Amino acid sequence: MTGGLGFIGSNLVHRLVSEGAIVKVIDALVPSHGGDRRNVDGEHVETLIASIGDPRVAELIAGADIIFNLAGQVSHASSMIDPQQDLRLNALDHADLLEIVRRVNPAVRIVHTSTRQVYGRVARLPVDETTAANPVDVNGVAKLAGEQLHMVYAQAYDTRATSLRLSNVYGPRQRLTSDELGFLPVFIRKALAGETIEIFGDGAQRRDCLHVDDVVAGLLLATADAAVGRVYNVGHRCDFSLAEIAAVIVAAAGSGGGLRLVPWPKEHQRIDIGSFKTDSGLIGRELGWTSAIDLADGIAQTVDFYKEHPWYLSSI
Amino acid sequence: MTGGLGFIGSNLVHRLVSEGAIVKVIDALVPSHGGDRRNVDGEHVETLIASIGDPRVAELIAGADIIFNLAGQVSHASSMIDPQQDLRLNALDHADLLEIVRRVNPAVRIVHTSTRQVYGRVARLPVDETTAANPVDVNGVAKLAGEQLHMVYAQAYDTRATSLRLSNVYGPRQRLTSDELGFLPVFIRKALAGETIEIFGDGAQRRDCLHVDDVVAGLLLATADAAVGRVYNVGHRCDFSLAEIAAVIVAAAGSGGGLRLVPWPKEHQRIDIGSFKTDSGLIGRELGWTSAIDLADGIAQTVDFYKEHPWYLSSI
Repeated sequence: MTGGLGFIGSNLVHRLVSEGAIVKVIDALVPSHGGDRRNVDGEHVETLIASIGDPRVAELIAGADIIFNLAGQVSHASSMIDPQQDLRLNALDHADLLEIVRRVNPAVRIVHTSTRQVYGRVARLPVDETTAANPVDVNGVAKLAGEQLHMVYAQAYDTRATSLRLSNVYGPRQRLTSDELGFLPVFIRKALAGETIEIFGDGAQRRDCLHVDDVVAGLLLATADAAVGRVYNVGHRCDFSLAEIAAVIVAAAGSGGGLRLVPWPKEHQRIDIGSFKTDSGLIGRELGWTSAIDLADGIAQTVDFYKEHPWYLSSI
Repeated sequence: MTGGLGFIGSNLVHRLVSEGAIVKVIDALVPSHGGDRRNVDGEHVETLIASIGDPRVAELIAGADIIFNLAGQVSHASSMIDPQQDLRLNALDHADLLEIVRRVNPAVRIVHTSTRQVYGRVARLPVDETTAANPVDVNGVAKLAGEQLHMVYAQAYDTRATSLRLSNVYGPRQRLTSDELGFLPVFIRKALAGETIEIFGDGAQRRDCLHVDDVVAGLLLATADAAVGRVYNVGHRCDFSLAEIAAVIVAAAGSGGGLRLVPWPKEHQRIDIGSFKTDSGLIGRELGWTSAIDLADGIAQTVDFYKEHPWYLSSI
């Protein structure tokens, strides 16, 4: 697994280990990204700290049955500050990984995580996979390129790859202390600290937020043969406004800080996409996946986790 | 102009110089690409041989009114052999160029050339700009990323960028001696040499081929303010089968070699996209562009050019 020390990766590690799988992790631990060794504390997993294009990766790949390829840069803000780094981490390094796969283990299954960010601002909701991608930041451009490289290899070399375009994901083991990794970890951190959650604009923009356990279930289903060469949307059945989502988080955390609407900062407004709702019908029909964890339940479980693991609120 | 020593670039240089523009060219002259100093023989243009991300590019950018950003890797085969190079030349170097623009000349107009290759294999013809891109080779992935980077900068920083997705282009000053730059230069070279043109499969796949003068006209119209932040398809009104196109070329060249159908080589068939037809209605409605040069006329003029400039048939 690449990116196995990160948010989604580490949740997948815990699940796989609990089911008896032998898991080997590659993670570059890029500073200020989501990777942290403590995310897999207590699990016995072999870990290589390296870029996914590193030649040493070949040894781990050679013996794998399935590669969960979750490594990447997920900060939209960082992608605008350093486009080269984002393109390297989300696209070029994946080209190297795919070449390694082709060379040492061409029959391995690969499940890659992409993002609904590739769609950017769209004309019609909900958004299915036939919608033209129109990313509004470098991160969306680079993630799309990384995803498409997997599909090119599937087409040209029979590489057995699948990519999942994930909606906004929350849950245990997310890096909470950065303001650059999406609104959910920020909202959760502020509510747990009793601070006021600030929402840009009128808070009416809608999102279909997904608990990480739903994502893990999707990643496991995506190892099916029927998913080879396919790109799937993975989002929640139900969408809510940012104000509603914040209210759910505030209530679960018992936060006295509440929430407040504030005017848009100019640089954020420019890359805002308005409301978004994923149409995940394709993965439902083809693989039987659907979101199972409702927002209020998922947030309550998440808040409990962070209360039991308070280091997430202060780690840098 | 970037890529100004290449096929389309050099034709644009001749047109711009003839209209009295001061033209400065940046070209990396990447070996086996289309760039050749002889393409601009006789024109007085300042030329910098450098990558478009080279720091020396800033000086040329600083004084420009319009940047025609035509630099790129155009070989699909090379993109599969060296994905890193293709991603660098078509995407990462453009991120560097856009950063230079933002720093030294944020108000400059940029017209970028993308390709219909970004669409890959599509479900429905003709293909308009709302069709989801589904590239079948690394070249398509990287060109799409380069194009989208221009649009991200337009959105986030008001960079005044436009991108044109060009169909298959033919005409004077194209590199004929490579087999990797599309079927048109190969067909033209073989017909002029009296060799038999070999067409894979049944020759029924259709293409809307565009004379380079039509492309040059499109590039000039795309400098209009109305085109800022827009991506346009640019293809011919009329499409023909590969067998018909070859027949037109054979007739114009007076080739005794004729043409012949041959079975698909496996590695080519995998990335074949079947028929393609561009819907260029958007650029027609918004900028008034439409293809003006019919295939038979364009091919006749092209064949005459190469008969007068035989070095194109033997240069490496």
